[in-house]
Amino acid sequence: MLRHLAALLALPLLAAPSCAQEAPSPRTIVADAPTGEWVAIAADDLLVMDLVPDRDGKPRRVVIQLMPPPFSQGWVDNIRTLARAHWWDGTSVNRVQDNYVAQWGDATEKKPLPAGLKVVRESGYTVSTGANLPVSVAGALTDAFEAATEMPFYQNKGEVEGFWRNGDAYADVTVLAIGWPFASDFKGPAVWPVHCYATVGVGRNLSPDTGSGAELYTVIGHAPRHLDRNIAVVGRVVEGIEHLSSLPRGKGELGFYDDPAKRVPITSVRLASELPEGDRPRFEYMNTEGPTFARYAQARANRRDPFFIVPAGGADICNIPVPVRRVKG
Amino acid sequence: MLRHLAALLALPLLAAPSCAQEAPSPRTIVADAPTGEWVAIAADDLLVMDLVPDRDGKPRRVVIQLMPPPFSQGWVDNIRTLARAHWWDGTSVNRVQDNYVAQWGDATEKKPLPAGLKVVRESGYTVSTGANLPVSVAGALTDAFEAATEMPFYQNKGEVEGFWRNGDAYADVTVLAIGWPFASDFKGPAVWPVHCYATVGVGRNLSPDTGSGAELYTVIGHAPRHLDRNIAVVGRVVEGIEHLSSLPRGKGELGFYDDPAKRVPITSVRLASELPEGDRPRFEYMNTEGPTFARYAQARANRRDPFFIVPAGGADICNIPVPVRRVKG
Repeated sequence: MLRHLAALLALPLLAAPSCAQEAPSPRTIVADAPTGEWVAIAADDLLVMDLVPDRDGKPRRVVIQLMPPPFSQGWVDNIRTLARAHWWDGTSVNRVQDNYVAQWGDATEKKPLPAGLKVVRESGYTVSTGANLPVSVAGALTDAFEAATEMPFYQNKGEVEGFWRNGDAYADVTVLAIGWPFASDFKGPAVWPVHCYATVGVGRNLSPDTGSGAELYTVIGHAPRHLDRNIAVVGRVVEGIEHLSSLPRGKGELGFYDDPAKRVPITSVRLASELPEGDRPRFEYMNTEGPTFARYAQARANRRDPFFIVPAGGADICNIPVPVRRVKG
Repeated sequence: MLRHLAALLALPLLAAPSCAQEAPSPRTIVADAPTGEWVAIAADDLLVMDLVPDRDGKPRRVVIQLMPPPFSQGWVDNIRTLARAHWWDGTSVNRVQDNYVAQWGDATEKKPLPAGLKVVRESGYTVSTGANLPVSVAGALTDAFEAATEMPFYQNKGEVEGFWRNGDAYADVTVLAIGWPFASDFKGPAVWPVHCYATVGVGRNLSPDTGSGAELYTVIGHAPRHLDRNIAVVGRVVEGIEHLSSLPRGKGELGFYDDPAKRVPITSVRLASELPEGDRPRFEYMNTEGPTFARYAQARANRRDPFFIVPAGGADICNIPVPVRRVKG
């Protein structure tokens, strides 16, 4: 108690880095992560979208990492086909709805699609945990979901039968594994990628349509987790989301630009692997199975850097974004 | 099973409004809410902030509803004092950090504050459920927290001892009551207002500083619930948040504008009660204790409008925003 009082009284003087209560912030943990804790993203998994320059003539580039197997691969294959056909060149960002999504594609809905696109069924929104998982993925996911029932760092408060679980309003369990956020349902059992800020998904018409991948959106507000299992999640923006999130909001229904002049033209969309070697952006993400990520997640859930006075004791899945960084070429 | 198959086959034909599966969307429920389900917001509880017009000369007005008693009232009183002193006139929006906050106040940190501001203690971040609650508030909160352990509409999946609870990673229970989102801790027991999209909070320096209310921010990304109980929550933006959320992101540390020319000047901040009667904006929020709100929350948690194929079965507290609407003068 005395120690507690002393700490309180001393804080104004000790708010410097040597303060006894201080612990590394999530940002410091990421900055100090050893090289071996990062995983390179393949050039075929990066989609590079250039918008027309802004009103000050500054370039606007958005880089998207595509979802790894076995998740949403029908749509991801279509996206690669569309990019290689340069299909998005000359299309536009047509919808920006505040606290929801920015969406792009062909506003005319008449541009012919390239040959060879797959029609994916709704069953593709989830992956059965029982079958068809590559061994490496199955191992990491199984480990992650098993650990999720015991590990304290992004759990919720629902203590059940002596162990902790980290389900939420949308799923029995949520985990971060193989570099991405997933959820699972005990009943299925199935696993699905979830909607967080910057997630990229596939626009579609009413069920049973699932979208081709030509119409895409990214989340620019609070995680719309109710879209999980209702829309294909195909990736995440890893750089330049501000070029979409800071666009003027559309005044039409659902945030569509009612004035076509407000649409933001897309100059080009390319797979990084299509770009000349020197122009390829390179990124890597933190290995979610490594010790640094565990420390980072714990720090996100229990902020003890000097600003915080009450650590939350938990964090929802979308408040532990997997660190992604640009690598100098 | 036959019925299920028939429904599947019939869907392309029945995706019209007469489809058997259709249920009203949250938006329709709000639009159809009877007049008696809405509560007027007092003019003294509305803060009207005008930014300089945008590059196209269009006005930018942001309207904030202040937090009701007994929550955060020391800071709310200060905010009224600052508004009446016209203290914010000539200050600016100085920080816009993507997926986090837009923040405004005196960038010079040298402008003298008006007399009479209170210094509020950290204990003001929460309200004890045991004492000092006005009877009307205590009743609504108690009812809400009691109901929260039984009502299915924004629960999580943590079934404990036969009843449902709607805690999350940040709190034992979350509820929507007296028009606002709150969380509570069984251990305290205490109640606190939570950070959701558009929440307005008080910037501060390191603890034990709690901020005066002169430096304010609003949330423009995924709910930063780790700030709950660490910063005073004083209100929410009820109109015009797009004028803050779509501002260019700051390039400096924490999203501060490193170039002072990028700051967005604030023309004036007034309580609506200070404005001429004809210029006063009027708003009302949906009564969270009424039957329409319950239907709305259920619909948010179980989307059955035609677009959705898998209702989530729950929703987190920040995904059930309390409906607020402008009333024609």
